[in-house]
Amino acid sequence: MTDGNPYARGCAWTHADGFVPIREAKMSLLDAGFSRSDVTYDVVAVWNGQFFRLQEHLDRFERSMDRLHMNLRVDRDEIEGILHECVRRSGLREAYVDMIATRGWPGRGGRDPWTFKNQFYAYAIPYLWIVEPDDQEVGSHLVIARDTVRIPEASVDPTVKNFHWGDLTRGAFEAHDRGGTVAVLPDLDGNLTEGPGFNVFLVIEGELHTPDSGVLQGLTRRTILELAEEHGLGTHVAPVPVGEAARAEEAFITSTAGGVMPVTMIDGRTLGDGQPGPITLRLRQAYWDAHDNSRWTTPINYDVT
Amino acid sequence: MTDGNPYARGCAWTHADGFVPIREAKMSLLDAGFSRSDVTYDVVAVWNGQFFRLQEHLDRFERSMDRLHMNLRVDRDEIEGILHECVRRSGLREAYVDMIATRGWPGRGGRDPWTFKNQFYAYAIPYLWIVEPDDQEVGSHLVIARDTVRIPEASVDPTVKNFHWGDLTRGAFEAHDRGGTVAVLPDLDGNLTEGPGFNVFLVIEGELHTPDSGVLQGLTRRTILELAEEHGLGTHVAPVPVGEAARAEEAFITSTAGGVMPVTMIDGRTLGDGQPGPITLRLRQAYWDAHDNSRWTTPINYDVT
Repeated sequence: MTDGNPYARGCAWTHADGFVPIREAKMSLLDAGFSRSDVTYDVVAVWNGQFFRLQEHLDRFERSMDRLHMNLRVDRDEIEGILHECVRRSGLREAYVDMIATRGWPGRGGRDPWTFKNQFYAYAIPYLWIVEPDDQEVGSHLVIARDTVRIPEASVDPTVKNFHWGDLTRGAFEAHDRGGTVAVLPDLDGNLTEGPGFNVFLVIEGELHTPDSGVLQGLTRRTILELAEEHGLGTHVAPVPVGEAARAEEAFITSTAGGVMPVTMIDGRTLGDGQPGPITLRLRQAYWDAHDNSRWTTPINYDVT
Repeated sequence: MTDGNPYARGCAWTHADGFVPIREAKMSLLDAGFSRSDVTYDVVAVWNGQFFRLQEHLDRFERSMDRLHMNLRVDRDEIEGILHECVRRSGLREAYVDMIATRGWPGRGGRDPWTFKNQFYAYAIPYLWIVEPDDQEVGSHLVIARDTVRIPEASVDPTVKNFHWGDLTRGAFEAHDRGGTVAVLPDLDGNLTEGPGFNVFLVIEGELHTPDSGVLQGLTRRTILELAEEHGLGTHVAPVPVGEAARAEEAFITSTAGGVMPVTMIDGRTLGDGQPGPITLRLRQAYWDAHDNSRWTTPINYDVT
């Protein structure tokens, strides 16, 4: 597939350059999307040549832009067309597809964000795994950060997908220092929130627990909650105090970048027998099976030119 | 000065492209400086052909990188050389000079930030005013945000200059909606912090009050505190409850981008007689006078090639 295809490692689209190979995908240093992190984005997966829950990702992306008072010069149909074309040009059957709206930059030197010309960027690259499949067989060691709390909702709305990851990155360093592989942050009240790019689930007495607030309303998270109900599993979307982690017999993290990824240790404590848990594996299987379910998929036409 | 000089509107430097006109200054969409706002920066002013407090800006920039565990492939002397050369090529006598360190991107797909190749970017553009000189004659209307609090130190360290401005941008929109021109955010305890790119000072009973924590330790702020002492003015660097604003007879904001900018109204209340206050104007004059004081200046050699 890479033979002679300049887009084989990924294809991007920008207002300035149109479709370009991913290595040439650039933005201005002066775009406030960078220089003020004034940006929102969404990521949709392509699996087996099909988008997964594309319309819901577009819905959320539009809602996020509304909240930030952003208006693009491309409408929803055009965005959808650009995403399809990025994937088509790349030829990728499994892809990580990012759509990004930035504040952009001012016309004539003003600093007021409501005067800026908003920018759209998109790209498709090979599917990204927060935890690689081989590493999922072992399971992750989740560390609950002690030195950093998640940016509160009173400062930045976590339901508007954003790049304010300074706290999450600090948590990742802490997890690394403490021998962990992934980090989740507490909020100021001592409840679990989320990690860098993922939601977290605990399994306690056979039922799922995941935080209700202070987190992105992840679409993988939503999919798992829906599949859990179909499988007759109890679900609790409510505050999850940090201490509850001590009661978990299983745990997993969820993301468009990797799906359902088993956790087998939390803060040095082995969960169950140290293997990915049965409920986790059942939901992971259901999650990937759902990628062939036409209620949630949108095929890409790789042949159109 | 713009005749035939491709750098007249600004000159940038990047690892990828070396020195380029500002319009061509680009970064990869995949740089975590953008996609995780994993970045620190510093801004130094050039006034009348001289850097102002350059070594102290470089000191802070290095300290910020240390805190974020970043290492550049350019050392301090090289950074200084690049900044000089950006200004020299632009020919600008008054400039806003930005130095930026980003996490960069991974070698082979890993997501761990400690494996990334950090990137350096710099540019010089015409001097930026948060409040234009003409508007300073009227003075700004400062709004204390009610809907948004500053990201707490427990999440993101405000002394490491960063682009986590989502809260500040929300505050700017709120100020705009409420008829103000600039916004300052409170912290979770109801004390004043800072605004987008500036520190804030209140003058109460002839003495200066500015928040001690939850803010960038701005170099313009430091300069004002030093000049105030030289002028025999009392200074209080301590928590400033929001309610104290009601007692202020003068106020001003400070930034490398604009110096000392008078505030003549807070939340709809006119300060004093509605004109920029006498202490504010005295300090503003002292601030600009200091730009010719050789203890703080570093001349640029525009003739070297």
